Amino acid sequence: MSAQDTGFQAALHEARRGSSEGGVSIGAALGYNMRIQNGSATLHAEISARENAGHLPASAYQGATTYTSLSPCDMCTGACVMYNIKRVVIGQNISFVGGEEYLKSKGIEVVFIKEKPGDWYEDIGEDQ
Amino acid sequence: MSAQDTGFQAALHEARRGSSEGGVSIGAALGYNMRIQNGSATLHAEISARENAGHLPASAYQGATTYTSLSPCDMCTGACVMYNIKRVVIGQNISFVGGEEYLKSKGIEVVFIKEKPGDWYEDIGEDQ
Repeated sequence: MSAQDTGFQAALHEARRGSSEGGVSIGAALGYNMRIQNGSATLHAEISARENAGHLPASAYQGATTYTSLSPCDMCTGACVMYNIKRVVIGQNISFVGGEEYLKSKGIEVVFIKEKPGDWYEDIGEDQ
Repeated sequence: MSAQDTGFQAALHEARRGSSEGGVSIGAALGYNMRIQNGSATLHAEISARENAGHLPASAYQGATTYTSLSPCDMCTGACVMYNIKRVVIGQNISFVGGEEYLKSKGIEVVFIKEKPGDWYEDIGEDQ
């Protein structure tokens, strides 16, 4: 399994954790959407992931990849730009199209998981 | 005192709370930068403010104004865009220039507090 596959599997696993708690089924590697569970206005999956990773030096983010099951919203896009993330790997943008073009305009590589779309559909209870 | 002045005074008050705790002296109305205190990667003042306001319906943000002592970074800019904030009132962009142009491009009104610059300088221990 490639590093990209492993990262995305981690994001998918986190999305499933959110779903199993009655929350929104969106995950990023290291975290998942906690808005419902925590009564939070900002804990989208990508923000949760950064919170879970803790207070790191700026250099820790440079060259890093964010893995997320859903195309990132403006806030999560901005978090990637602010931290100079190198690459964002996205599960799907069918249910929501986020700031992919803005990420690219800032020189951030955007990659979609095309190889295993069935994993996402299964996650949201649909056949492909 | 106008509503704008009151909101900015609240942001300045929050910035001072952050400073008094040994944190970064940046505030927004309802919250302040908690990165140092909480070992957080995302609790900038504007994110703290939204967290403190809690889990609100989307309509609660529309027509709202964000007051912040410092020009917002890309993440906080994105949070304003994502929530369809109507207006952002900024204390200063001398120490950091954030996503002001991006906010404007999304139809969000950007206002600077020019009337009382002395308040900010005083907050960072400098004369004007």
